[in-house]
Amino acid sequence: MSKTIQDPIHGGIKIDEWCTKIIDSPQLQRLRRIKQVGFANLVYPGANHTRFEHSLGVMYIASILVEKMHVGEREKKEVIAAALLHDIGHAPFSHSSENIVKKYLRVGHEDVLPLIKGTELEDVLKEEGLRIRRISELIKGPSIISGDIDADRMDYLVRDSYYTGVAYGVFDLRRLIDKIYFDAEKPIIEGSALRAAESLLLSRFMMYPTVYYHHVCRIARKMYEKALERCIEDGSLDVKLLLKMDDHDIVAFLRSQKGYAGEIMGLIDNRRLFKRAIYVSRSRVGLEKINAERAEAEIAAEAGVDEKYVIVDAPQPEEAKELKAVVDVDGQQLKLEEVSPLVRALKEAERDILQLGVYTKKEYVDAVAKAAIRYFNIERIPKQRRLDEVLPIW
Amino acid sequence: MSKTIQDPIHGGIKIDEWCTKIIDSPQLQRLRRIKQVGFANLVYPGANHTRFEHSLGVMYIASILVEKMHVGEREKKEVIAAALLHDIGHAPFSHSSENIVKKYLRVGHEDVLPLIKGTELEDVLKEEGLRIRRISELIKGPSIISGDIDADRMDYLVRDSYYTGVAYGVFDLRRLIDKIYFDAEKPIIEGSALRAAESLLLSRFMMYPTVYYHHVCRIARKMYEKALERCIEDGSLDVKLLLKMDDHDIVAFLRSQKGYAGEIMGLIDNRRLFKRAIYVSRSRVGLEKINAERAEAEIAAEAGVDEKYVIVDAPQPEEAKELKAVVDVDGQQLKLEEVSPLVRALKEAERDILQLGVYTKKEYVDAVAKAAIRYFNIERIPKQRRLDEVLPIW
Amino acid sequence: MSKTIQDPIHGGIKIDEWCTKIIDSPQLQRLRRIKQVGFANLVYPGANHTRFEHSLGVMYIASILVEKMHVGEREKKEVIAAALLHDIGHAPFSHSSENIVKKYLRVGHEDVLPLIKGTELEDVLKEEGLRIRRISELIKGPSIISGDIDADRMDYLVRDSYYTGVAYGVFDLRRLIDKIYFDAEKPIIEGSALRAAESLLLSRFMMYPTVYYHHVCRIARKMYEKALERCIEDGSLDVKLLLKMDDHDIVAFLRSQKGYAGEIMGLIDNRRLFKRAIYVSRSRVGLEKINAERAEAEIAAEAGVDEKYVIVDAPQPEEAKELKAVVDVDGQQLKLEEVSPLVRALKEAERDILQLGVYTKKEYVDAVAKAAIRYFNIERIPKQRRLDEVLPIW
Amino acid sequence: MSKTIQDPIHGGIKIDEWCTKIIDSPQLQRLRRIKQVGFANLVYPGANHTRFEHSLGVMYIASILVEKMHVGEREKKEVIAAALLHDIGHAPFSHSSENIVKKYLRVGHEDVLPLIKGTELEDVLKEEGLRIRRISELIKGPSIISGDIDADRMDYLVRDSYYTGVAYGVFDLRRLIDKIYFDAEKPIIEGSALRAAESLLLSRFMMYPTVYYHHVCRIARKMYEKALERCIEDGSLDVKLLLKMDDHDIVAFLRSQKGYAGEIMGLIDNRRLFKRAIYVSRSRVGLEKINAERAEAEIAAEAGVDEKYVIVDAPQPEEAKELKAVVDVDGQQLKLEEVSPLVRALKEAERDILQLGVYTKKEYVDAVAKAAIRYFNIERIPKQRRLDEVLPIW
Repeated sequence: MSKTIQDPIHGGIKIDEWCTKIIDSPQLQRLRRIKQVGFANLVYPGANHTRFEHSLGVMYIASILVEKMHVGEREKKEVIAAALLHDIGHAPFSHSSENIVKKYLRVGHEDVLPLIKGTELEDVLKEEGLRIRRISELIKGPSIISGDIDADRMDYLVRDSYYTGVAYGVFDLRRLIDKIYFDAEKPIIEGSALRAAESLLLSRFMMYPTVYYHHVCRIARKMYEKALERCIEDGSLDVKLLLKMDDHDIVAFLRSQKGYAGEIMGLIDNRRLFKRAIYVSRSRVGLEKINAERAEAEIAAEAGVDEKYVIVDAPQPEEAKELKAVVDVDGQQLKLEEVSPLVRALKEAERDILQLGVYTKKEYVDAVAKAAIRYFNIERIPKQRRLDEVLPIW
Repeated sequence: MSKTIQDPIHGGIKIDEWCTKIIDSPQLQRLRRIKQVGFANLVYPGANHTRFEHSLGVMYIASILVEKMHVGEREKKEVIAAALLHDIGHAPFSHSSENIVKKYLRVGHEDVLPLIKGTELEDVLKEEGLRIRRISELIKGPSIISGDIDADRMDYLVRDSYYTGVAYGVFDLRRLIDKIYFDAEKPIIEGSALRAAESLLLSRFMMYPTVYYHHVCRIARKMYEKALERCIEDGSLDVKLLLKMDDHDIVAFLRSQKGYAGEIMGLIDNRRLFKRAIYVSRSRVGLEKINAERAEAEIAAEAGVDEKYVIVDAPQPEEAKELKAVVDVDGQQLKLEEVSPLVRALKEAERDILQLGVYTKKEYVDAVAKAAIRYFNIERIPKQRRLDEVLPIW
Repeated sequence: MSKTIQDPIHGGIKIDEWCTKIIDSPQLQRLRRIKQVGFANLVYPGANHTRFEHSLGVMYIASILVEKMHVGEREKKEVIAAALLHDIGHAPFSHSSENIVKKYLRVGHEDVLPLIKGTELEDVLKEEGLRIRRISELIKGPSIISGDIDADRMDYLVRDSYYTGVAYGVFDLRRLIDKIYFDAEKPIIEGSALRAAESLLLSRFMMYPTVYYHHVCRIARKMYEKALERCIEDGSLDVKLLLKMDDHDIVAFLRSQKGYAGEIMGLIDNRRLFKRAIYVSRSRVGLEKINAERAEAEIAAEAGVDEKYVIVDAPQPEEAKELKAVVDVDGQQLKLEEVSPLVRALKEAERDILQLGVYTKKEYVDAVAKAAIRYFNIERIPKQRRLDEVLPIW
Repeated sequence: MSKTIQDPIHGGIKIDEWCTKIIDSPQLQRLRRIKQVGFANLVYPGANHTRFEHSLGVMYIASILVEKMHVGEREKKEVIAAALLHDIGHAPFSHSSENIVKKYLRVGHEDVLPLIKGTELEDVLKEEGLRIRRISELIKGPSIISGDIDADRMDYLVRDSYYTGVAYGVFDLRRLIDKIYFDAEKPIIEGSALRAAESLLLSRFMMYPTVYYHHVCRIARKMYEKALERCIEDGSLDVKLLLKMDDHDIVAFLRSQKGYAGEIMGLIDNRRLFKRAIYVSRSRVGLEKINAERAEAEIAAEAGVDEKYVIVDAPQPEEAKELKAVVDVDGQQLKLEEVSPLVRALKEAERDILQLGVYTKKEYVDAVAKAAIRYFNIERIPKQRRLDEVLPIW
């Protein structure tokens, strides 16, 4: 019997019976307890939503899109299963654990195969005649689960904006979904939905600095990362467990630690976060070349501060895949960035979103700032400075 | 310096500097990690919101209302402080722990005094010249924090409906707030906002069966209660700690328990919940007279099932205080239920919301149902039965 | 080629090619210039929406519902055509002209047959193989266009609330639509959508007094009616033309009239409306027995005021058809009012919505009030009066 | 006594008693019958909103902003009066009549002085001690009614998007309003509202092509203009009357005309609009140098079509004043376009929004297209053409 789950974004999401079996698996139920946007609730108190509801949302969008694909029933179900399962590889607090998992386990959250193999979930999928390898490929992409324009980002941009209360993320999702057709398995946007596609890019452009790259979110994430790393290095945490843990587990674990990890978790719990020593636009410091670990060590030494209290955050730029989404212009298939002057403009403007941040405990801010300015050889910030070099946005 | 916190319900909430000190206290920060509606996210995956954001919301509404009160600056600040602090007495999962706390500690979540005394928060409040005793009284009510029409329920009805995606809860909050004036310290609703006040009652009427009393929420809550109780009785959990714990703590604790508590937490984690054996309208069984503990024992015995797997849930009716809210009709002050035929109708209809539920593990449902029907002496449900006696709503 | 029309309520409404031909007909284009809720914009300045967009909305809902009906392709198209055409029989300002049309032409707005016959629209429908008689029957109902639960009211309740800004009208439309199935051609609501169906009734209950029966809307409508009547009686307006006119036509016509009709139109234009002399709850005066025309004459005579400046408005109660909507309760089909205590309560409460109003020019209010009180033999309104007997709601 | 008017955008708008007198003036009541966005309802059926509700909305925003200005009570009231009155100079269908009024009367809609002088409204304003000349200056700007960032556009962008259902226009209005402060009388945006200010620009950028410059809106407007012009030239319409007429008047007038004007109005009524012969991006044809009248004559001659059926639409670029809005960056006042890379990007992209259109009756499209291509010397549109040169957006 099919079920309906109420979702604040998409309304009632119909769940076919075979899908309920996937949803009932421990792999998916665990996502109920993993926050979608990590520590963003320290800035946006409403941002407590989870990977679970996001996965349902992606399934909802994918199940509309898949109906337009010219593929068989099995292939369709595989797409839907991939939508549901695409995030089971996330560790606690989602992206906040990602660097650690990558560094020590050399896997990304899209590596779901090992998490399915040998579990009841594998049986469930096989009974439905679905190929696990195919599902895994769909999750890695390119596909409508992960591609230049995909169900994943269509859901998360709207969902994250709903829960943060940052109105900017709301774009004409429905129109966009309705106006996608498939050429082979490649999604093509009809020309008449150009504005809706542009809006997707805009949402992205707005959400990145205000939510995903908000400096407070970055600080909490980096503090958490550093605590994790310490526990892994000193053997108190088996990194492989991370992929089985949920937010409750890791928080309880860190709290139980004596020393640095426990101290850091206490600071996060009580929102006594590190402060910005410097915060500089990427256009002034090339982020790509920075070796954060070395920088932390040298700045700490220069400032006379214990290295564990110095964080150098140099987020790496990633190309917006949406730019390559294909639009059907009067029969020709062109890339979104070719077609839209707005999109080209956004691409240009996006360069300046990323910032180099050096963070430390409140009492060390001055010393660390001085040392960081010297280390990165930043000339004095000029009188006529730009907003994005000085001020946190928001 | 004042700050603005973005809230999906009320937009940007302005926080005065003195308030940030209260918000920064561990008592309030802990609420970030206590879910507002306990286990409701097992039914409504979006319902992960917390007591923290709710407390900000109550403060927002209270700070508008308090401007209309004819009281001094200190009194105003005390109302605002009370709004922020009114929920610091909640244990993990909010109301889900309430019965246990009441049974063993004999306090309710509105008993905040002992949680403030002797802490830094007391100093913060004193520095502002605020009287802790007065704040405590405001939280106990009657006041605009807790009364027949108060900032608490104005916030939670809208907020809970936003996160559950149950549209019904949205009422014309703003109009209602704008149309309240104060006679002494008593809030009076202007006649022209009668419809908005009715809507508040309606929201309540809609949210209770679909969210707060949804049988799945009741089941999870009762399972959790039973697990807690077991741990307290066998000495593994010090009940006094509950008021210091957050959701992470209690979940991690229960998971770590061998035996029953660990088993139950595992079932909740994986959403393998007890099922309904019987589910009967209050109009057929007088809830008031039921001794749930005794009923569980006898039904379990009769069914040949271990008592720990039988739950008898007989929620007790509470009068809707809103009925007594005062409306100004052309100069006369009348009670809402006198003035509004709709409200009288709702009062009547509300009687049937509560249901007696007997829940057990799936494999025992038949045996337990049989025993429960005999125990409660329920005649066979007649052909011409009413929906609310049979069907879960939703 | 199908088209998409952007609608603020339902989003992008897809229009099949054959439908565009109906939409392009003068009969439907005329509805662009007929306000949906007559003179309601004198109270709610946003209420300028038209029968045209409402007709598209009804088509949208009907086209979802019709997919679940077990009927052939032709029948489906007839339902959709009926949805589009169901309101082409409206005269200017919709219901505001309805009494006049009924009185002089003895037709209702659902009599669409004569408006289609012999026009190009007839050819369009015939070309599609559609039966005009069948379409006409569907519009008269019972059907999903006009029945106890129908696409017409599902659209107008939400739409009217959107444009008036009266939030109350928003109900969980989508859930309701999704949960309707068909038994023969009879729509049945699944039990799990009971709350959504209740919400529809609630919307109705809220919109009636605040919008449809708001005294200012009633006054403007009655003034307009009286002006129309005068023009018909003195031969300056051919009543048959009303069904061809739009709002522009009738306003321009009335403005061009010398004497009473021109005066009244001027008053409406400048919102110098008649005022309430008395406004009494239906529970105090039996509306059914009132002969408004006679009452106007006698009250005017007694008050020494020209009859043309006295309006007696005794709206007649109509049963809410929604009460009879059928709900599937665990396999049994029961009426909504049997199943839902809330609906029974609303039915009870709705009795008090209608009010007897006597309206006149500001300068005559006192004299007319006196005469009306005597005429209707209204005892003095007691001290302990109810809000709804005295105060305009809103 | 103050009143509250319900508005779908801002909720309940409080109207002070002295304002009700302005609102009750014929000048403002007339705006109830003038559509805000002219003929846009031919594309967006919901776009029937009027200058009246927009004027209330501007007053609402202005009354919040004015509280932060350091001016006396009289000055504040003058700002509010200006907000209410800023659009009384509009002719029927707002901007659709603007070219005609400008050409023949040499006034713009912001020239309100002559419309107030010598009327009752003048007395009302004088009684309140308000200076009409000052109000007039505020309307002409620069001021918060008309400036680089003003209450007028803050309202219309949100309002127009609400009624068209084009979601793009929704920006974080409330945040922006809250974060504006005044330096002398100059509004300054706080740095922390930079994103909200950017959103205003984005809304603008999105609304222009999809609504204000949608080719169907342009066509209807140009047809209407041409009909008006004909009537003025042949003496059947006294252009001075336009400023007293509302939409009803002008439609009824045009319908009553024999010949061209009546024909055109009939085409608009039945949405039998001219079609695009060519539609070319501004980047390919310099709009500034085009003499539309001459072009129409020559193209018509060449195509062998009566000139009255050929429309050349060369909309003139206007600089977005918002670019100059001032943002407070850490104490320095900088222009929005200096501060924001997004805004600079939008400025760049906006160049391509305007299009040259040549429109004619369906049967002449081919002939006129040919003639127009020759006249404007447009090389053949290349294979690798851009979307915005070919396709109507939407």
